[in-house]
Amino acid sequence: MKFLRHGPAGAEKPGLFASDGTIRDLSGHVSDLSGAALDPHALAKLGAIDTSTLPVVDASTRLGPCVAGTGKFICIGLNYSDHAAETGATVPPEPIIFMKATSAIVGPNDDVLIPRGSEKTDWEVELAVVIGKTAKYVSEAEALDYVAGYCVTNDVSERAFQTERSGQWTKGKSCDTFGPMGPWLVTKDEITDPQNLGMWLKVNGQTMQNGSSKTMVYGVAFLVSYLSQFMSLHPGDVISTGTPPGVGMGLKPPRYLKDGDVVELGIEGLGTQKQTFKADR
Amino acid sequence: MKFLRHGPAGAEKPGLFASDGTIRDLSGHVSDLSGAALDPHALAKLGAIDTSTLPVVDASTRLGPCVAGTGKFICIGLNYSDHAAETGATVPPEPIIFMKATSAIVGPNDDVLIPRGSEKTDWEVELAVVIGKTAKYVSEAEALDYVAGYCVTNDVSERAFQTERSGQWTKGKSCDTFGPMGPWLVTKDEITDPQNLGMWLKVNGQTMQNGSSKTMVYGVAFLVSYLSQFMSLHPGDVISTGTPPGVGMGLKPPRYLKDGDVVELGIEGLGTQKQTFKADR
Repeated sequence: MKFLRHGPAGAEKPGLFASDGTIRDLSGHVSDLSGAALDPHALAKLGAIDTSTLPVVDASTRLGPCVAGTGKFICIGLNYSDHAAETGATVPPEPIIFMKATSAIVGPNDDVLIPRGSEKTDWEVELAVVIGKTAKYVSEAEALDYVAGYCVTNDVSERAFQTERSGQWTKGKSCDTFGPMGPWLVTKDEITDPQNLGMWLKVNGQTMQNGSSKTMVYGVAFLVSYLSQFMSLHPGDVISTGTPPGVGMGLKPPRYLKDGDVVELGIEGLGTQKQTFKADR
Repeated sequence: MKFLRHGPAGAEKPGLFASDGTIRDLSGHVSDLSGAALDPHALAKLGAIDTSTLPVVDASTRLGPCVAGTGKFICIGLNYSDHAAETGATVPPEPIIFMKATSAIVGPNDDVLIPRGSEKTDWEVELAVVIGKTAKYVSEAEALDYVAGYCVTNDVSERAFQTERSGQWTKGKSCDTFGPMGPWLVTKDEITDPQNLGMWLKVNGQTMQNGSSKTMVYGVAFLVSYLSQFMSLHPGDVISTGTPPGVGMGLKPPRYLKDGDVVELGIEGLGTQKQTFKADR
């Protein structure tokens, strides 16, 4: 199933993208796509509803982030060997973990604000994992039992804030609107192999990233297990698993986003996003 | 006023610590100490209630974290010049920002779990700032208008996870229970100068940290303004402003916490915490 959230920012309702291509409202069946509603069994129940009985939502309705109640927005750094190479870094011996502020999360097609003082706002298409039930000290073999599904994220990054403004990456990762998420939370049954998904990103129509999750260094099951050794993962927590090559920072010369640029991105089976970048005046 | 939250974990109710030394319940007046309730004007209204009209709460009741709805738990690294020196680091030219998982937050006297595999669990008494209303691009002069008040945090840290397990500090800062917060959210009117507060920490009765916020490099107003240039700060967000000298990592030889150790800490005017550290078996 492809779950989504529709409506104005901060007042989204739960819904799904039906097989007939319509958006259907689920608010008669669940209050939001958060907490216990994300348990894989709960999602399966929602998915079993006859979608023809659900109200149709206008196709032009804004989509919000595809999951609510995200307590942690965890990102994995340098998790594609070829992306590590383009940034001049080596693949780390263990996953690099950092946090994006959850206040950065927006809908998949919302405008992204280029922060005041930014000169190096960059893009990163990423496969994200949505946690469905609390996971602590779980093994790699059982890790996917704790996953609700997958979605697309754009891990928007301000490279100067990230690396030139004193230690730790948080500063360049957490700006408002730097976390477009969605369009859909796609359940596991639709994604037979999360380690073999094509992914791409275009800037103003020009392809910049064109990779696959098969070149990911640390895979989804490993990451869920690994993270759960350090902290409990809760329903709604999102793990963005890193980006393939082709970010602006890696180009020669580097290229960064300007007011008016349009970024489109997508992952096989998970849908697409489209954002206009605007100066935050 | 000294606000607090009392009751079982996950089901805390709002309250306050009255001038007669009793805990009083506020749940007849506000649902929780989160969101709009943290606006300085809203807190002032609560503080104006005649506390003798409020139900007394048993003094032995567990205290929870003193604020709810924390979306971001932001920490400042190496923000005391003498602490930077003891860790072998230099004071950074701009504040170092990192995030602690909000899932690490616990009450001030709850047990702290030493994670499996940990050999370097350390302590850090810190002055924390609680945001009272949304702040974005605010100046240093107006920054304190956005502050609800202050509280004590223990920025518990696993040093091997933090610095020996591949880049970024999040891994060693976000373990479950690594964020004791409280006992009280003390409003600004009670703290005339946040840059002149004595602070201390003991392990099994032995004083390990004995400092003052007057040796803080980047002060509270600067930090609120600075952070707001990168991201919106929302009501309930907490900024833990760094620790003075005396952490275990800085001792020669280093000393780390073991199962059964008792840590007590406090800040002038903000109350005290006491935690028993226990192996997370």
